[in-house]
Amino acid sequence: MAGSTFGERFKITTFGESHGVAVGVIVDGVTPGMEIDEAYIQVQMDRRKPGQSSVTTPRKEYDKIRILSGVFEGKTTGAPLSIQLQNTDMRPEAYSDIKLLYRPGHADFTYDQKYGHRDYRGSGRASGRETAGRVAGGAVARKSLEGRGVSIVAYTTQVGDIKCQTFDESIIEQNPVRACDPEVAVKMVQKIESLAAIGDSCGGIVECRIRGVAPGIGEPTFDKLDAELAKAMLSIGAVKGIEFGEGFAAASMQGSEHNDAMDKNGFLTNHAGGIVGGISTGEEIIFRVAVKPTSSISSPQRTINKEGEEREIRTEGRHDPCICPRIVPVVEAMASLVLEDHYKRQAALHG
Amino acid sequence: MAGSTFGERFKITTFGESHGVAVGVIVDGVTPGMEIDEAYIQVQMDRRKPGQSSVTTPRKEYDKIRILSGVFEGKTTGAPLSIQLQNTDMRPEAYSDIKLLYRPGHADFTYDQKYGHRDYRGSGRASGRETAGRVAGGAVARKSLEGRGVSIVAYTTQVGDIKCQTFDESIIEQNPVRACDPEVAVKMVQKIESLAAIGDSCGGIVECRIRGVAPGIGEPTFDKLDAELAKAMLSIGAVKGIEFGEGFAAASMQGSEHNDAMDKNGFLTNHAGGIVGGISTGEEIIFRVAVKPTSSISSPQRTINKEGEEREIRTEGRHDPCICPRIVPVVEAMASLVLEDHYKRQAALHG
Amino acid sequence: MAGSTFGERFKITTFGESHGVAVGVIVDGVTPGMEIDEAYIQVQMDRRKPGQSSVTTPRKEYDKIRILSGVFEGKTTGAPLSIQLQNTDMRPEAYSDIKLLYRPGHADFTYDQKYGHRDYRGSGRASGRETAGRVAGGAVARKSLEGRGVSIVAYTTQVGDIKCQTFDESIIEQNPVRACDPEVAVKMVQKIESLAAIGDSCGGIVECRIRGVAPGIGEPTFDKLDAELAKAMLSIGAVKGIEFGEGFAAASMQGSEHNDAMDKNGFLTNHAGGIVGGISTGEEIIFRVAVKPTSSISSPQRTINKEGEEREIRTEGRHDPCICPRIVPVVEAMASLVLEDHYKRQAALHG
Amino acid sequence: MAGSTFGERFKITTFGESHGVAVGVIVDGVTPGMEIDEAYIQVQMDRRKPGQSSVTTPRKEYDKIRILSGVFEGKTTGAPLSIQLQNTDMRPEAYSDIKLLYRPGHADFTYDQKYGHRDYRGSGRASGRETAGRVAGGAVARKSLEGRGVSIVAYTTQVGDIKCQTFDESIIEQNPVRACDPEVAVKMVQKIESLAAIGDSCGGIVECRIRGVAPGIGEPTFDKLDAELAKAMLSIGAVKGIEFGEGFAAASMQGSEHNDAMDKNGFLTNHAGGIVGGISTGEEIIFRVAVKPTSSISSPQRTINKEGEEREIRTEGRHDPCICPRIVPVVEAMASLVLEDHYKRQAALHG
Repeated sequence: MAGSTFGERFKITTFGESHGVAVGVIVDGVTPGMEIDEAYIQVQMDRRKPGQSSVTTPRKEYDKIRILSGVFEGKTTGAPLSIQLQNTDMRPEAYSDIKLLYRPGHADFTYDQKYGHRDYRGSGRASGRETAGRVAGGAVARKSLEGRGVSIVAYTTQVGDIKCQTFDESIIEQNPVRACDPEVAVKMVQKIESLAAIGDSCGGIVECRIRGVAPGIGEPTFDKLDAELAKAMLSIGAVKGIEFGEGFAAASMQGSEHNDAMDKNGFLTNHAGGIVGGISTGEEIIFRVAVKPTSSISSPQRTINKEGEEREIRTEGRHDPCICPRIVPVVEAMASLVLEDHYKRQAALHG
Repeated sequence: MAGSTFGERFKITTFGESHGVAVGVIVDGVTPGMEIDEAYIQVQMDRRKPGQSSVTTPRKEYDKIRILSGVFEGKTTGAPLSIQLQNTDMRPEAYSDIKLLYRPGHADFTYDQKYGHRDYRGSGRASGRETAGRVAGGAVARKSLEGRGVSIVAYTTQVGDIKCQTFDESIIEQNPVRACDPEVAVKMVQKIESLAAIGDSCGGIVECRIRGVAPGIGEPTFDKLDAELAKAMLSIGAVKGIEFGEGFAAASMQGSEHNDAMDKNGFLTNHAGGIVGGISTGEEIIFRVAVKPTSSISSPQRTINKEGEEREIRTEGRHDPCICPRIVPVVEAMASLVLEDHYKRQAALHG
Repeated sequence: MAGSTFGERFKITTFGESHGVAVGVIVDGVTPGMEIDEAYIQVQMDRRKPGQSSVTTPRKEYDKIRILSGVFEGKTTGAPLSIQLQNTDMRPEAYSDIKLLYRPGHADFTYDQKYGHRDYRGSGRASGRETAGRVAGGAVARKSLEGRGVSIVAYTTQVGDIKCQTFDESIIEQNPVRACDPEVAVKMVQKIESLAAIGDSCGGIVECRIRGVAPGIGEPTFDKLDAELAKAMLSIGAVKGIEFGEGFAAASMQGSEHNDAMDKNGFLTNHAGGIVGGISTGEEIIFRVAVKPTSSISSPQRTINKEGEEREIRTEGRHDPCICPRIVPVVEAMASLVLEDHYKRQAALHG
Repeated sequence: MAGSTFGERFKITTFGESHGVAVGVIVDGVTPGMEIDEAYIQVQMDRRKPGQSSVTTPRKEYDKIRILSGVFEGKTTGAPLSIQLQNTDMRPEAYSDIKLLYRPGHADFTYDQKYGHRDYRGSGRASGRETAGRVAGGAVARKSLEGRGVSIVAYTTQVGDIKCQTFDESIIEQNPVRACDPEVAVKMVQKIESLAAIGDSCGGIVECRIRGVAPGIGEPTFDKLDAELAKAMLSIGAVKGIEFGEGFAAASMQGSEHNDAMDKNGFLTNHAGGIVGGISTGEEIIFRVAVKPTSSISSPQRTINKEGEEREIRTEGRHDPCICPRIVPVVEAMASLVLEDHYKRQAALHG
């Protein structure tokens, strides 16, 4: 699993299982002399934590972070930040089924195939709990990006087949699904609650807008800015797809429609979604990710055990019937990491 | 541009501009003792090269490859393979406009923002010509994957708004759009030809199926198999999105529908597209990429020059009105590189 | 400081300053299913810790490690191990001079030049305390190497100008300087104590032997086994040189003397030190590192403060008058990391 | 052999065997807009090439380089430079013994152990010919470093047991051994010629001085500037050791002697060799490498063949009886690569 590190010049390495002692992250390559404290990071952690509303799991994780290194007298030193969270409120007994059975939609089967020996408690390393370290690391990147004038906002645009019709950024953090349309948000909550009531779950779409990125950020060839954002987003457990700008709709467009013409004031349109040839245009970067329905459902499903014998399973425990609202801060965190890293690569290119 | 390298244990580094002396690739980490020759690689190069039919550019690149190192007595030695193609049939005069004007949809503007100094001839490094090195490197990976029982096939499923209705693998290489539906392929060709006639272009969707991958391949956390495939695909110039299995359709599904149940014979469905938790399930890996309409069109477009003055541009020259059929072998090549690399990482994990 | 990570397929990332909350390491790429526990790692930590004898600093670090992740039911899972040590017995007041003055031989000046903002307490990140994470990570590698039949032993061969005359491996851990010659060890202790008494320090040489390495381990070209061992050793603060086999003495030898001839039983000599062309021969790997005299001395030295004003400094506090005995386990740890990583790379090459 | 790449932000990847079609290098991460041409690089190539004098091999390699990409209108574009040399004057028949026998001191045995299948012609990938790509890549780095005010000079200080007594930089390129002492150089030539006459060879020591490096360059922890220089140097085939500043002599020194005190004008001494805590002090960086005697000698030696049968071998062919003068430009090239890379990393840290 030498894949626990992300980034080149701004780099995070995460560790920790759902029911281990702690989870956390080492953030390396941070610009020295930057002011940061635990409270700043905690704000993002609180957006990710479970138990925020009726549509998220009632599970209480103790998401209070602690910075163990890399900050001195309120400022980064250039040394790696280690940020950590203790694990608490673990009820391993609620997960006893996982030890024996492969839960459909979960990584139980694939982990066993890959490793043989698996920490099955609460999905272990494959748990969404791992993203806590990402959000902490992403908060450090976000702090630096603020100084660059870059802002990143993600939000839910679709839950099941219910889609937002308007974009009101001010209400995103005001509704439990983090949707951008206040009226639709109400219907989304109803849908999620009704599915939860019958032991089922649903998917959705999360959109992300990145503003203030200077033109010229991103590497050509393999490390294109959109390529690295795609990797970052697909590395989030529940994400099954990503599209930039017009995305899949571009398939049905013609060049004369899709090309973004320019006049002396800049681009006339932004069908490309702010990235051309892997490099930022200076326009808003916009992409959407497809989020699958939560795999943990309490309605019965067919599966097998490690011996290959057929069984029925109901994934009890406390789960999010729709993970979109809690994926929002993770999307922002991963986007922050990619952007901060690419700003530093650009500095190296010309440095 | 220290982003010209792709992969960790099976690694390619490409070089070359559209109108420079040559383009090529260094392939490092190749298993020693594997039989390979130039003819094997040439087969893939010929699938990528321009001028194959009425729907591809009539430009003639001399895509005859040469292996400069790493092969001895017909077998790989474990040393890096250098594979190279000379550039010929270059008509720089046809691209003189690019020197002065930013072509809409192209990376002219973003390269100037990033580098300042730009090789504008035929799009330089941002040219699709760069993918020749990828296809050559991918062919080496493909050869190794054959020995593992892995096969990879990509094909066009949509051109503009015309979609394939059936899947007939045998006809993919028999029609100029590399579609999987023989009847629809005819309509696709008509559409492309009619757009070309009016100086326009169109996009499409390419799908890829990877079979025979053992369960357990792929890293968890950041280097998930789908995350790395996503990066690989988005690193192809014209690709604007990717989705695995149900992809964006999963947003509208419920957990009870999307979860792939198992019985003693294995998975009952494959909504996940062969990857769960970033690791292969052993089922077919299936994904689709959105391809934007070719940016080079001869109908007039608004743009500016380097000085910011408004101009009109018609991108003359010889271009593909729909790039899907020529992206097919590039998709296969990139998928091959990711898979071969991950097989080697798995060997390292347990090695 | 995106240089806190070491290794490719077996990889450690360390964090922590001398007087921060904690120091630690994330170990990624560990073979799953390997038995390991805190007690095994603690043995190596105890060899590194201060306060072991009259020749080491009386400072008491609380070097009790804790594994936070990656181990389940006594075995590694393949997920990253996070291993951590709390910092205690910190007396920042003893280091108040460092805040204002650049200590000769220390990284105070260079850190200020690099970062501007510096955690000066106990040398911060530049403290030998950072090696605790390396030793913990190295212990995980050592455990795996044991299963491969590889053993690594380092020891002091020279302190000041006093050199060992014999090689008795059994007494290395029985004397406070970890020398390989029991009689010379006594003189070494005397020398160190007499220097400590006058507020001075001395250097030495540490030798390392690695046995049981299969032939064929190591990469050619840039990642030669000796090149990576050299980097690993020079990354230890006090190390100023390294030589393999005959080392610098080879400069005065002739090819007919230095070449290691073979007969049917193998190599007749081992002047090369077990590595030829960057790849292990199967013979004992042997190298020596030059250790500079400890920079912290209490006799007065000339220096400047941050404003460039001339000052006199005496580095009080508790220091090792000769760091060789405590570098021994660090050398072994770093060698273990390099070897384990290269075994995994070899598995990937053929995998 | 995924070890053919060196560097992080300024990165080279080499390919090619002694008797293959060509050797070369891809240089990635080059600052765009830098003036460079083939003539500049050729100067360094000519210093490395064989056949320069009576003390080097009379073999004539055609070391005329060609830039295939990355330079446009006389300036770098930021795209990777591919630089290549054709192989000529190959006499494979002169190496027929290598096919069957393991030459003492050479990597024949270790390559066979590692790879099984080996290109034995002229040592294949293990040939000194591989360093041509390094010198070409190093020349690009050198060009950039010139603009930073950094200069790098290496020279022979010892051949066999004959040591330079003075340091006269002006005569280094004026004598065939590239020694820094004109009188001693004459004796060195005599020694080498007399050894060559009896079919033997000798080793030596090469020293390198790097001037003009700003303080603050180099990463702490694992990627220390001296650690990376050590790796770079030990990656050169014939190098068996390295020491910085006082190096191994520091073992016999006391802290009060070795510490470099400061006054208001800077450091009073430079025992450290210009690097403290892995970071440049701004003083001259000075290190020495131990060069083993050339392995190829025509006097008879005992060895075995692939089947393990005992044989006698004389390595005929054209070889350098002392490789020091030809290693000098390789040492400078590798040092240039490390420095340029670390300047870019520093830019990223603060960027």
